Amino acid sequence: MNFNMNEIITKKRDGGKLTDGEIKFFIEGYTDGTIPDYQAAALLMAIYFQRMDEDETLELTTAMRDSGDIVDLSAISGKKVDKHSTGGIGDKITLVAGPLAAACGVPIAKMSGRGLGFTGGTIDKLESIPGFQTTLEPEAFFKQVDEIGISLIGQSGHIAPADKKLYALRDVTSTVGNLSLISSSIMSKKLAAGSDAILLDVKCGKGAFMENEEDAAELAETMCKIGNSAGKRTVAVLTDMNQPLGHAVGNAIEVIEAIETLKGRGPKDVTELAIYLSGWMVYLGEKASSLEEGQKMVREALDSGAALEVFRKLITAQGGNPDVIDDYNILPQPTCAIDLVFDEEMLNRSFGLNERNEDGVYYVSEIDNQLVGLCSQDTGAGREVKEDEIDPSAGVMVHKKIGDEVRIGDKLCTFVGNDEAEVKEAFEDAGNIYTFSLTKTEPPVLIKKTIQ
Amino acid sequence: MNFNMNEIITKKRDGGKLTDGEIKFFIEGYTDGTIPDYQAAALLMAIYFQRMDEDETLELTTAMRDSGDIVDLSAISGKKVDKHSTGGIGDKITLVAGPLAAACGVPIAKMSGRGLGFTGGTIDKLESIPGFQTTLEPEAFFKQVDEIGISLIGQSGHIAPADKKLYALRDVTSTVGNLSLISSSIMSKKLAAGSDAILLDVKCGKGAFMENEEDAAELAETMCKIGNSAGKRTVAVLTDMNQPLGHAVGNAIEVIEAIETLKGRGPKDVTELAIYLSGWMVYLGEKASSLEEGQKMVREALDSGAALEVFRKLITAQGGNPDVIDDYNILPQPTCAIDLVFDEEMLNRSFGLNERNEDGVYYVSEIDNQLVGLCSQDTGAGREVKEDEIDPSAGVMVHKKIGDEVRIGDKLCTFVGNDEAEVKEAFEDAGNIYTFSLTKTEPPVLIKKTIQ
Repeated sequence: MNFNMNEIITKKRDGGKLTDGEIKFFIEGYTDGTIPDYQAAALLMAIYFQRMDEDETLELTTAMRDSGDIVDLSAISGKKVDKHSTGGIGDKITLVAGPLAAACGVPIAKMSGRGLGFTGGTIDKLESIPGFQTTLEPEAFFKQVDEIGISLIGQSGHIAPADKKLYALRDVTSTVGNLSLISSSIMSKKLAAGSDAILLDVKCGKGAFMENEEDAAELAETMCKIGNSAGKRTVAVLTDMNQPLGHAVGNAIEVIEAIETLKGRGPKDVTELAIYLSGWMVYLGEKASSLEEGQKMVREALDSGAALEVFRKLITAQGGNPDVIDDYNILPQPTCAIDLVFDEEMLNRSFGLNERNEDGVYYVSEIDNQLVGLCSQDTGAGREVKEDEIDPSAGVMVHKKIGDEVRIGDKLCTFVGNDEAEVKEAFEDAGNIYTFSLTKTEPPVLIKKTIQ
Repeated sequence: MNFNMNEIITKKRDGGKLTDGEIKFFIEGYTDGTIPDYQAAALLMAIYFQRMDEDETLELTTAMRDSGDIVDLSAISGKKVDKHSTGGIGDKITLVAGPLAAACGVPIAKMSGRGLGFTGGTIDKLESIPGFQTTLEPEAFFKQVDEIGISLIGQSGHIAPADKKLYALRDVTSTVGNLSLISSSIMSKKLAAGSDAILLDVKCGKGAFMENEEDAAELAETMCKIGNSAGKRTVAVLTDMNQPLGHAVGNAIEVIEAIETLKGRGPKDVTELAIYLSGWMVYLGEKASSLEEGQKMVREALDSGAALEVFRKLITAQGGNPDVIDDYNILPQPTCAIDLVFDEEMLNRSFGLNERNEDGVYYVSEIDNQLVGLCSQDTGAGREVKEDEIDPSAGVMVHKKIGDEVRIGDKLCTFVGNDEAEVKEAFEDAGNIYTFSLTKTEPPVLIKKTIQ
């Protein structure tokens, strides 16, 4: 069938519903270069204003999925469960939930992208472990999952090239923020990644793409509908991103925090979320007959040290030095550290002269989480452009979180890294990260909602 | 000042008002190629949805005007008046109104584009006269206007290149139909063309860009505001385009009709509109103290044959054979002609079996004017793509117009040209041009409104 791109743009511009054929024509033509960027840009902006309905969004997603390779994980026995986070600050959950689910028998065969961000991605974090290899041939990848239950590698091959091209265009044409475009971008890659079920961690709050819960819920619902309609059981959990997860925001320091969590000594929020999500993974992977049973199983795998052993095996299997688990000094160490301290000046900035607590105790009421992320990027922990090299030692240690007590002289957070100028820059940008209150503020609820 | 194109797109997408600086940055950057097509396309679509206000539209127009050369007509004495039509079928008014205004002392120094269309433009029509040259050096152009009062040449040089580039982009991104974009496109070129005053003939009806009168009035008002704000007295006349102007739709055949009109034997509508518009030109050119006086003057120039003599001088001055005025056989002649006849089949298609007029007289109630234009293009009279060559002899002679009586056997129109296959194609496409009624339909009002 023959389509005309100008007519497709006009139809969407005027609020019409695009047919499957029209959407396929657009995605195929844009991927192979027969449809130019400017027509794609005009259509994206028309979609921004007129939106797409469920049918169109599903078709857009499957057309993007089909634009490249579809990973075949059938060589690995068992139900494969993929986990995806929409992007959080200090989000090292995969490093904990992966081993937890694997310890309960769910095969974890996960490929992750790198991308830009406030810190590196899962793959970058793992690469801070000396020797750790994130490139494996498919045969070796399958074999490792069959043997030790888990493999975490970088995305290779040609997954959803249409999304890659479209995302780059959206980024420079102010057409990122549309529900159908966001959800199809995420889900096209997940549907091509070969797993049997998908668990989505949809972040909401100041440090997330979706600031408010309603928008995040709408995104989660849209993605679940797409996943389930395309034949993969999909569940989404809405979780808080108004402050970093745990204390560590970076790469090596997040690996340490993940190991601490697997040792049962992790921050409460990281532990809670890792258990909840891996519990879901065990249930979706059909190793438990209920979510409760799944969560009980992962808790046991945590308490028994079984999950920590899986992580050790993972490091060994992929060429890393497993001693890192007992000796964090093996990891890249920062040469520079600057503390942000709660001082008189900050106190005076926060409160009027008559507002003082007699006991000298104040509380963290808010964290500008976006700014924490930008400061992390400043230290060298994340990439601003694709070509940037990550400093694996760099990042932010966030000591005080929402609801915590603070006294004059307390360290609020510490910026670390190897480039003194960059660490200083992070520190200088950090002045407005914290807001304080005279009375205790309740910390935000971590797990807000689960959508199936 | 530094601007960011992505932020400009976002601002307009979200309904913001662009500053003069932002608009200039966009137009300059798009013209010099530093802003890519895809960002321009996204902005155009955002403008399509969020519109531009008066200030933005004016700034867009002046920025486009300033993107290229601004013609300097100061070497020609007197107030120069430009006339522009938004595009009509059978619109040969410039060929009549130009000589009429020139005969009354208004210097007519007009540059016209060619472009695509149902017929050629004014320049193409003139070129059907053997020998007629439409390329003149500026000195010769100025001298001719000073000596004989008129010169009509092709647009040369580098007039509003931003508009040229943007228009081409709008055409393939479904962003043509926005008031600010349409009016700035027309007015940027008019403001750069060097005249002191501008008379706009804004067409409305089935064969025009603006189908209904309200839209056409809005466009006319916007263009008048732009012109007057930019310091050129601008007047717009809304005229009917629900049927062709006159009977001839083509190139050589329109020249004949224009000459006939200058001889006082032209169709009523062509004569009426040419007098009205040239009357305005005389008034705007300050050769008359009122519109009424201007119209009286042009009527005299018509009746006395003075305007015809101006046309003869124009042809001679630009190298054409002036004998054409007395011998139309000098013009390119079509070798093929096919009549569309009102026959039994058309009668039966139009009316039920019980609906017959005893005297056998029926009436034209409607003309699909767009279709007349397309059929004219079919014959070879217009260009579909820039590279097309025009057949100067080709076109459509429209014998019956709205309100005219028709009987079985009457010729409705005749398709002429040199390419038999093309003329046949026009004839075959023509079946639905006419709609008939049992009682007389009033012809549409020709001159609907004048806006200053």
